[in-house]
Amino acid sequence: MERIKPRTLSGFMELLPADQVLFDRMVAILRESYALYGFTPLDTPAIEASEVLLAKGGGETEKQIYRFQKGDSDLSLRFDLTVPLAKYVALHYNELSFPFRRFQIGKVYRGERAQRGRFREFYQADIDVIGDGKLDIINEAEIPSIIYRAFTALGLRRFKIRVNNRMVLNGLFALLGLEQQAGDVMRTIDKLEKIGPDKVKAILVDDFAVSADTADTLLSLLSAADPMAALEPFKGKNELFDLGVEELNTVVKYMAAFGVPADHFMVDLTIARGLDYYTGTVYETVMLDHPEVGSICSGGRYDNLAEYYTDKQLPGVGISIGLTRLFYVLQEQKMLNASNAAPADVLILPMTEDLSAAISFATALRAQGVRAQLHCEQKKFKQKLNYANKLSIPFAAFLGEDEVKAGTVTVKNLLMGDDFTEEEKADMESQGFFKQVTLPVAEAVSYVKNCLSDPKDDRPILDKE
Amino acid sequence: MERIKPRTLSGFMELLPADQVLFDRMVAILRESYALYGFTPLDTPAIEASEVLLAKGGGETEKQIYRFQKGDSDLSLRFDLTVPLAKYVALHYNELSFPFRRFQIGKVYRGERAQRGRFREFYQADIDVIGDGKLDIINEAEIPSIIYRAFTALGLRRFKIRVNNRMVLNGLFALLGLEQQAGDVMRTIDKLEKIGPDKVKAILVDDFAVSADTADTLLSLLSAADPMAALEPFKGKNELFDLGVEELNTVVKYMAAFGVPADHFMVDLTIARGLDYYTGTVYETVMLDHPEVGSICSGGRYDNLAEYYTDKQLPGVGISIGLTRLFYVLQEQKMLNASNAAPADVLILPMTEDLSAAISFATALRAQGVRAQLHCEQKKFKQKLNYANKLSIPFAAFLGEDEVKAGTVTVKNLLMGDDFTEEEKADMESQGFFKQVTLPVAEAVSYVKNCLSDPKDDRPILDKE
Repeated sequence: MERIKPRTLSGFMELLPADQVLFDRMVAILRESYALYGFTPLDTPAIEASEVLLAKGGGETEKQIYRFQKGDSDLSLRFDLTVPLAKYVALHYNELSFPFRRFQIGKVYRGERAQRGRFREFYQADIDVIGDGKLDIINEAEIPSIIYRAFTALGLRRFKIRVNNRMVLNGLFALLGLEQQAGDVMRTIDKLEKIGPDKVKAILVDDFAVSADTADTLLSLLSAADPMAALEPFKGKNELFDLGVEELNTVVKYMAAFGVPADHFMVDLTIARGLDYYTGTVYETVMLDHPEVGSICSGGRYDNLAEYYTDKQLPGVGISIGLTRLFYVLQEQKMLNASNAAPADVLILPMTEDLSAAISFATALRAQGVRAQLHCEQKKFKQKLNYANKLSIPFAAFLGEDEVKAGTVTVKNLLMGDDFTEEEKADMESQGFFKQVTLPVAEAVSYVKNCLSDPKDDRPILDKE
Repeated sequence: MERIKPRTLSGFMELLPADQVLFDRMVAILRESYALYGFTPLDTPAIEASEVLLAKGGGETEKQIYRFQKGDSDLSLRFDLTVPLAKYVALHYNELSFPFRRFQIGKVYRGERAQRGRFREFYQADIDVIGDGKLDIINEAEIPSIIYRAFTALGLRRFKIRVNNRMVLNGLFALLGLEQQAGDVMRTIDKLEKIGPDKVKAILVDDFAVSADTADTLLSLLSAADPMAALEPFKGKNELFDLGVEELNTVVKYMAAFGVPADHFMVDLTIARGLDYYTGTVYETVMLDHPEVGSICSGGRYDNLAEYYTDKQLPGVGISIGLTRLFYVLQEQKMLNASNAAPADVLILPMTEDLSAAISFATALRAQGVRAQLHCEQKKFKQKLNYANKLSIPFAAFLGEDEVKAGTVTVKNLLMGDDFTEEEKADMESQGFFKQVTLPVAEAVSYVKNCLSDPKDDRPILDKE
């Protein structure tokens, strides 16, 4: 038979089992985090009509999209979760209750040039709150709390949520007479962290005709130690600016009540995000030890989610985590908690011809929520233990003639080393942990269940405290 | 602005929020069920190289596939989860431990003619156990137990798992001199339930040259009340048949130890499944009250998973649930448990300008795992309660001036009717449930948490007992 070489397309993440367990745990924790804030899950098709998906049209999107014909239909794979949300809300407007809070974790597709750490198929984990006509600022103030809860539950410690308000920036540009160059100025100050204030000033002055004085004013404001205080003197002169400062103040004011520690949050006046889309609060989240990664969770407030589909005014606020890229970074940085990715808790090794006793033991374990696998292949005993070790399965259970006759099971803890001193062994046993113990079946089930309920570290990410 | 009419492609399931909650709960229960049996999660790309996906080639598959060009690449969307598994195992053979037990729940794509209940994008929920060279029969015996656990946990009651063995059928055809017509005979007896024994006999005799005697022998065997006993007289004459009967006996023998009640399991000698692929045990699962739906979980034993990619012999056994179609059927049959699809447990209604107290209460609830949503939009009080009712949110919490000053919260149980008699009310209150109660914040958190921990019915499916 002629064989095809098996391969996975480049730019498509395909994980080995232990990593997949961690990835799925991240997804589960995000789902749980989002649910705690009253977000409801959504799942839209990966394929949409091209005219729907490209209603906004334009630039990079259209070049990268996977678009194809099937029969008479012009179809495309979704390139984000926002456009499908806009379509969903416009389409189902009458069946939804507003504010509509949804999360969606799903794959999106972009035919980017393949390079390390860039993916053509990747998961986004999005939340959005959509208002009908209006949406209170409190929704914007709540977002950092969700980011904080989600990343903390994942195990991340050293990160900071940065917040700004687009009205502050736009109002400021108006106040400084920079309305004409607003876009250019914004793109330039966005580079402040990367290239430093001197170069930013040079670009502003040389390339965009900003006066040296104005550039200095702007730069000293942007790098103020206390940004909220630095904004004060500019108040009362521009309505947009004042509204932006008020909103930013509200967001800052409620941070503590929302449970976000001060050291995980800051106002950063240099953050702009997408130039056209966002209109109020904007967010970025950076890993303190890996600034080169950029923002791992971003978003903001927008005024009109679905203007391409409906005349309903649907303002919203949302954030997105690029989960596949984040996972890739965590792999690269060796920050994944690989210690806990076993597919089963107990590997059952029957050693008699009749397997009824071993099977009944497996059934009893499963009924108690303990993950059990029977290993009945024709392999040597040692090979089976190797199998358990390779998969990090913590317990092996043996049922030989003696055990079956006596109605017992011998349970071996595979994670306990063989080189304990007698003292260490006695200490463990006094705590109810045995290297190996033979117990009646029902007791063996409880014993394993108890050992497993010992608090273990389920966080998929390991970070410095 | 010119607007595009929002629409979702026909043949693509897009659920409203309450249904999506139930769908996701089904997925979670399947994941948990599969994990209990030691299956590890897998997630492969939805897009593969066409030459890889179509290595086997042939017929319907190629017609239905979504295939397209992107740059120089000939790409296709996966049409099932088995071919990607074969690729995965062949590609990662050296990094996997065998037997390799994986589950995968994901979307697959088939450009079928659109009709009611047929989907072009649909979820499959698959498990497979892959052996390296050999795979013990116990893996086949275990499968019905997994099916039983999964469907029972979903809430399904009235279903039956039917099992057969392809070697029994093939051996029997050899014994009866029907080897030439084996395929035709198999397809005909597969219709037994639908068209009855007389018509089957007529087809066998008239169309496929089976003698009337042989047809009678076959039909009496296929419809025997005790199929295992009926097979006995044929033993000792054909090796394949004997092996098949032995395997089938093993599967039947261990059903009780695997926890499958006798009334949820039967041997059905008419089941054949795919003609080419399966080589040993085969499975179908039917809803007793809805036989017209056909099998809702099918699969079987195969000898060589990845022959198109590798010379390694990789036998396996697997089953698949067509989750999207199952969900559609449950919707149609009104078998979904819609009572429990709220996106939040508590809707918090602040009634003061400063929201700190309300936000802190939300944070305290969330820290205890209670799903809380703040509703701070400018709406009338009554509209906010309507919102909670529409979303089936069970509790509303009010924080007015009085509560904030006193450090309390007023919690209202929205699921309790307003028309209780005094007696009924007293009875509820004696059990710790109040229509409305004002409590200090910390106590209010515990109170809500306790009310929610009251055993509620989380099964997504409601079936007759």
